[in-house]
Parts: sequence; C-alpha cells; structure tokens
Amino acid sequence: MEKQKKEKKAREKDQDIGLTVKKENMSEWYTQVVTKAKLADYSPVSGCIVFMPNSYSIWERIRYIVDKKLKETEHKNAYFPLLIPERLLIKESEHVKGFSPEVAWVTQAGDTKLNERLAIRPTSETIMYETYSRWIRSWRDLPLLINQWCNIVRWEFKYAKPFLRTREFLWQEGHTVHSTEKDAEKELMFILNNVYKDLIENYLAIPTIVGKKTENEKFAGAVYTMTLEALMPDGKALQLGTSHMLGQNFSKPFDIKFLDKDGKQKYAWQTSWGVSTRLIGALIMTHGDDKGIILPPKIAPVQIVIIPILFEKGKDEIIKKANEIKEKLEKEFSVIIDLDESHKPGWKFNQYELEGIPLRIEIGPKDVKDNKAIAVRRDTFGKISIDIKDINKKVKDVLDDIQDNLFKRAKKFLKDNIIEVKNFEEFKEGIKQKKLVKAYFCGSTDCEDSIKEETSATARCIVGDVKGKEKCIYCGKKARYVVYFGRNY
Amino acid sequence: MEKQKKEKKAREKDQDIGLTVKKENMSEWYTQVVTKAKLADYSPVSGCIVFMPNSYSIWERIRYIVDKKLKETEHKNAYFPLLIPERLLIKESEHVKGFSPEVAWVTQAGDTKLNERLAIRPTSETIMYETYSRWIRSWRDLPLLINQWCNIVRWEFKYAKPFLRTREFLWQEGHTVHSTEKDAEKELMFILNNVYKDLIENYLAIPTIVGKKTENEKFAGAVYTMTLEALMPDGKALQLGTSHMLGQNFSKPFDIKFLDKDGKQKYAWQTSWGVSTRLIGALIMTHGDDKGIILPPKIAPVQIVIIPILFEKGKDEIIKKANEIKEKLEKEFSVIIDLDESHKPGWKFNQYELEGIPLRIEIGPKDVKDNKAIAVRRDTFGKISIDIKDINKKVKDVLDDIQDNLFKRAKKFLKDNIIEVKNFEEFKEGIKQKKLVKAYFCGSTDCEDSIKEETSATARCIVGDVKGKEKCIYCGKKARYVVYFGRNY
Repeated sequence: MEKQKKEKKAREKDQDIGLTVKKENMSEWYTQVVTKAKLADYSPVSGCIVFMPNSYSIWERIRYIVDKKLKETEHKNAYFPLLIPERLLIKESEHVKGFSPEVAWVTQAGDTKLNERLAIRPTSETIMYETYSRWIRSWRDLPLLINQWCNIVRWEFKYAKPFLRTREFLWQEGHTVHSTEKDAEKELMFILNNVYKDLIENYLAIPTIVGKKTENEKFAGAVYTMTLEALMPDGKALQLGTSHMLGQNFSKPFDIKFLDKDGKQKYAWQTSWGVSTRLIGALIMTHGDDKGIILPPKIAPVQIVIIPILFEKGKDEIIKKANEIKEKLEKEFSVIIDLDESHKPGWKFNQYELEGIPLRIEIGPKDVKDNKAIAVRRDTFGKISIDIKDINKKVKDVLDDIQDNLFKRAKKFLKDNIIEVKNFEEFKEGIKQKKLVKAYFCGSTDCEDSIKEETSATARCIVGDVKGKEKCIYCGKKARYVVYFGRNY
Repeated sequence: MEKQKKEKKAREKDQDIGLTVKKENMSEWYTQVVTKAKLADYSPVSGCIVFMPNSYSIWERIRYIVDKKLKETEHKNAYFPLLIPERLLIKESEHVKGFSPEVAWVTQAGDTKLNERLAIRPTSETIMYETYSRWIRSWRDLPLLINQWCNIVRWEFKYAKPFLRTREFLWQEGHTVHSTEKDAEKELMFILNNVYKDLIENYLAIPTIVGKKTENEKFAGAVYTMTLEALMPDGKALQLGTSHMLGQNFSKPFDIKFLDKDGKQKYAWQTSWGVSTRLIGALIMTHGDDKGIILPPKIAPVQIVIIPILFEKGKDEIIKKANEIKEKLEKEFSVIIDLDESHKPGWKFNQYELEGIPLRIEIGPKDVKDNKAIAVRRDTFGKISIDIKDINKKVKDVLDDIQDNLFKRAKKFLKDNIIEVKNFEEFKEGIKQKKLVKAYFCGSTDCEDSIKEETSATARCIVGDVKGKEKCIYCGKKARYVVYFGRNY
C-alpha cells in the first residue's frame, strides 16, 4: 500500500502538466510554457538557462537549415577562441563602447592572476579580424566567407527571459571580407534576404519587416545595420536577425589590407551577421495558444506523434497497425510513436499539444478494421479521417496546410497591428494600444531619444526614404525616413 | 611592371607551401603540417588556437558520426551553461582537486565585481547534476541520457600543441543517469565500444588499446575510467576517448535520488564520457607522411579532388568532361573540382596532397578521347586508369582500399611497437626505444609514481587481471594487473 501511495504521489506531479494561464496573460504564459513544455530550465547561474532537449532540437533544425545554405554558397565554418584579450577588444572605439558594459572578464587561472584581462566573447569581430589580417594578402584571397557556431556571453543586468534575454546564448556569426564595397553590400543583403528571411518566414512561419537600423540602434562599430523585425502577440517588437555593413571600420584598425588587381594596397570591406537562439523565443510566442506551443511542421524536430488507443481486446493488432503507419510515415517525415501504457491517451494528447507537435495520429479498434486513422491538427484541432493506404500523401497536404495557416495567421496579426500615424498624439496612442507604429521621422538622435523617453518605444527600422515634404512626427522638421516604432523586450 | 612584380611577390608566398621537414622529425613536422595544411592558426590568446575550415570540417564529420549513433540510441542533446558557480564546482571533493588548478575564473562583469567567482567549465558534471536532481523523481524518469556539444577551457600551463593540448577545445560530453549500477556499466561500455571504438577504428582508422585507467590516471571523481589509447609514430601514447563510471559519487553530494519500483528512495548511478578535437591531432599524426596529412576516406570532408590538365587546345572539352565526372561522383562521394587556371597542375597536386584528400582524379586531352581518367591514391601514390563509364564503382573500391590500407598500416605500426617486458631493465629500455610497454603491475600508486619519475612513462591502461603468480615489474610483489605503459604528450 505504502508503495502504491508513493507511486501515486509521484504520478500526481505528472498530472499537473497543463498550462494554468491563458496566452493573453503573455508574460506568465511564457514562463509556464517554457518550463512545462520542457524547453528550458533555470540554472544555478543567474541569467543563464539550460537548453533542454525540446528547445535544443529546434536549434539543431535552425542550424541545419542555415548551415546548408551557407555551405551551398561557399561559406566555410571555423572556430575562433572564446576569450579575447582586452587590448584587442578596445581596438575599434565604437565597438568597445557598445560591448564593454556587458563583458564578463576572466582575470584568474588556477591560482595565477592573469597579466591581461580576457573578455568572454560578446561577439567575435576583434578576435577574428586580428587573424584575418594574416590570412589576406591579395585579391585572390577574397572574398573570405567564414561562419562560426558558438556560445556568446553578454552580462545583461536586466531581468532574464529564457531565449529572449539570457547572459549566455547560442548563435552563428558570419564574418566576411571583400575587395569592394559593392561586394560586401551584396553579401549582407544575400544573407538578410536569402538566408535569414527565408529561414524566419518560410520555416519558422514568422512574418518580418525588413529595414535599416537608425544610428542609435545600429551595431556598435558598423556603418549600418540591416534588420529583420517581428511583432509579438503582446505588441512588443523583436529583432530576429541582423546583417551589418562594417565598411572599413575594422579593416583599418586591424590592418586587413590586400593587393588589388591594379597593384595597389587597399583596405578590405567587411560584413558580419548573426541569428541566435532568440529565434526559439519568437517561435514560442508567435504561434503558441492556451494549450501550449505550436511548432510549424518545417521546423518541428518531431512532426507527427502516433498514439494508439488501446483496449485489452485487440491491443496487439492496433499496435501492429500503428507501427505499420510509423514505418510508412518515417520515410518522409519525422515521427514518434507513444506506446507507453502507464498514461491514458487523453493525458498524452495534452502533453503533445503542450509540446507543440504539429500533427497527432490516433488509431483505435474501429480504425484498424476500416484501415483508417484519425489525424488531429495542432493549429486548429481539426480532425481528419485518413485512409492508411494513401496516408503519406494526405499527411503531407495537412502538414503543408498547417505551415501555411500558421504563417497566414501571423501575417494577419502583424497587418492588423500596424498603424500609420499622422501626429505625435496618434503615435502615443498607437504605442499605448500595443501597435507597431509607422511614422515619418527626421532621423535625428535627439528626436529618437525623446520619443523613447516619452513613449518607451524605440525605432525598429527604417523602411523607406521620404521624397516629399512630409514632417517628422516629433519635431515637425522635414522628415527623411519612414520608420517603424515599437516597444521591445 | 611594378604591378606584375608585386603580383609575383604575392605568388611566391604561395609557392612556399610544401613541408620542409620529414615526418621522422615529428615535432617540427607536426607544427609545419598544422599551419601549412591550413588546419589551425595560432591566436592572440596564448594556448588557444583557431580551428580553420580544414580542421573544423573534420570535427563536423566526427560530430555527425557520433551524433547519429547517439540519437539512434535514445540519447538527447541539450546545452548547459558555460559558467559554473564556485560553490557547485567544489561539491565533489576529488573532482575539484582534479580540476581547480586549471580553472579559468570569471570575477568581473562590466564594471561590477561578482559576488562569487564563476568557473568556465573544465567539464560539466557539477552544473548538469545540480539540474538533474530536479528532473529526476521516479524510476520512470530513468535512464536519463543527455549529451552536449560544447567548448571547454582548461588552463594548462604546459606548452600548447594544436589539437593535442590547448587551453580551449571542443568536445562532446555525455552524462547519463541510471537506476542500477549494471545499467550504468552497460551504458559506459556501449559508448566505449559501439560509439568511440567504432568511430576511431572504423572511420579515423586509428587502432586502439581498450582498458581501464589506474587509480592515478582515472577521471577526478570517477569510480573507474575506461579509456581508448593509441600510439603515435613518435612513440608517445595518446588517450583518445574516455568513459567513466561515476557510481554514486556525484548523485550523493548532488542529491540525485529516485523512487524505485520497490517504493524506496535510492541514489542514482551515473556515467560520463567524451571525445574531443584532440582526435584531429591523432588523425594528423597517425596517417601523415612527408607530403602532408592523409585523411581516411570515411572521415575526409572532401574525398576526391578532380584536376583537369588544361592546354589551350581542347580546353573546353576537358572542362566539360571533368564536370561530367564530378556530377557522376557527387551522387555518392564528396567531390571538388579545381578549375583555377592561375596555378599549374603540379602545384595543385602538392597542395591537395598536403591537405590529405584521399583521391585525386586527373583528366587530360588523351583521357577525354579514351573516355578515361587517372586516379591517384594519396596513401600509396598508386595510379589507376579508370573507365569513366564505371567510375563510381571503381572509385568506391579504391576509397575502400585506402581506408583499409591506412588502418592496416597503423595496426602494423602498433603491433610492431608493443613490447612485453619481464623486468625493469627491459621496461626502461622499451620506453627508451619509444615502445608501448606491456608489463605486470601491482597496482600501487607508489610504484606508479616511481615508474613515472624514473622513466617518465605513465600507466596507459589496465588490460587484464593477473590470476597466476607473476610479479610487479617494479616492486617485485604480487602483480594484480597487466598494464600498458608509455610516454605521453
């Protein structure tokens, strides 16, 4: 009896897996879903999280997709040291200003005090470019197209939020060198549109607004920064990927010169660009619902879960049929089957809905007889009866439709939450209403600072130049840009 | 003229790519081959290297092979924080004794002094197990099979050697939890034999000796350590992978308990295991020759390079045929084609021999006419004329043969350099002769220390128990083990 009681108690913990809060209560929902869907766990190091298998496998999918594209276009992976000597980090003055407040410093090894402090990389421009200067001699060595997958530490003092703001995160950082400004520009736009936008829209199903960062918001050390911005359901904007034109800002202090075809020594042109595990946070927030997260089929590590509905009678037959379905499906899809009899089907439905697997396939005694199965979509909970004989074709259609539907839903939300404003009253009201506000803007840093102070909104990106006589939303002087503003995390 | 001169000078640098030292001068050869084959570069952080694309791509192959096997056997990838609070690192007393002399400490973030020092992980037992204790409740949660791919920092004060001993390296570390000692044992032996030995022997073509570490040499905090040892051409032994039985040494201080089927709370049994980028160093040393490195086909990122021999006449035809061959081959193999006309074929031959690509395919005007090509093996420089119409079949056979031949060669070297000794005079002579010495050993730490002091050889691994009356090679007391001794890096 004692034993059974203890077992029961241990199991009760299991029962308490569903979300106890609705998604409209976004902040609490996010915290719950992250831990209950076993995406992340808090760690003993304040501000750092554990990437549990359920989130790490999403990162592996992202990595696979990006890596494949980069390799197809002659980019090569390498790995540079984690630690950056202080003297290197400070070589480009804007860069160090941007990053040094957040640097974690190694000052000691074993019992020995180090002669020079070493920064844990907050980004790798400086450690890479010191080396690049030795690799590049002539125009024949260009372009140099290097990427690295690694961990990054930025010691933020703001409250941590799993995936969105943590002191350590994972990312890829590309660092390329070109012989002309035009080549560098082509590269950074290729990454922005053909790699990042494709990943985020076509796989993660998150619609983006693509534009240029303002002077205030650009990468520390860049000439300019291109960005992909998304709007989360709580009305906050989120930067999902950036691609920077570094111009010759680093090649000069780091002495990256090459002998050009015309026989002249020239400073090279550079770009850098990255996406990080923050994408996982955007994915969770964009598609999730009151039941849990929803993974778009093209990014889901597991696309289909098969759950046989078992009774004592005919159990073997159902299991056999379920395995048969699995074998068929796994030729094209990523599939798991849950044969654990210690949980009821209903419990499993909840669990996999929480974890966001896009499609569930149920098969019970009657289905076996009819050679059919029931497919249940995670996005709409729509049920479809499927003939097992052409299950792969049907499943493919449904998965494609889920992918499309999630993207459509997210696009509608974005469209419905953009507001174009004509004066600062409308601007403030828009931000209050949690909208992404489109406005004319003069481009001055003073205006930008004042807007942030008064509304807590920041300029997300510049999406166009102003040719007419439109006025800046804030100062009333001549506008230069069309800019999206919004609150952010 | 000035322009041409400069170009010429830049090109001269290119010419100087061959090795200027023979492999018998191992240490200098290694240094040259690592930089000239573009495997690694020195970095501005003393003791840390840059993994250049040529070595990182080997690591990616290793990662792919190991990762696939782990996933097929229900292991899951996760990612735990880089930084470990000091209070965690010191929880297991043997563990901290082993690692703290080499720990790099973060003491500061931005301008703020941290309250507690944070260790950059020298290994992740402590940071993981603190979390595990919250994940595990009942026997249903076991086994827990987690792996992580990450960077590691151990601040060695000895002279650095690329891939073999660097202050930062890359590895995978598996950390599993089981309900019984037997299950833990099964796991660690599975990893040792089915994952690591398979990888190292069947892919890297490096023969190993598998055994148990002595008390002196086991992992700090383990009950015992199983190891895979290899012998390098300079007579030094190298540990290539280890799999540790942690027993309950960590589950007790970290409170990893579970409710067993019998209703009792029990401490769990644990294993940990890892292989690192050190494998790349072993690969370079084992197979390389006076021309450069030699990559076994099953691990080579690029298996075949096609080099068309171009003359002005018939150039287009040759290029067309070379591309045709490429298209055929890349259905089954990893292939590149070198169409760069600024280098002569001879220069290219040297370059790809240096970089170790297992097979080169040459095609010239005569070959085009005969619909043939010449294949040149990297291991023996043997030339084979191949009919293009069945090139895939022929190439497969040759690549298989190269793989076999490299392994056979390495096995012969190992066999020829093992010596069984009967007394300490023979032992010393054997070590002097750069042999791996097999000897009877009592197992005492005192003897082991004395042997190391007198010969600089360490016990590599225990490969058997002694049942008879054999005596210890050093103290003459009853022997307990058959042990391999050797010098190491």
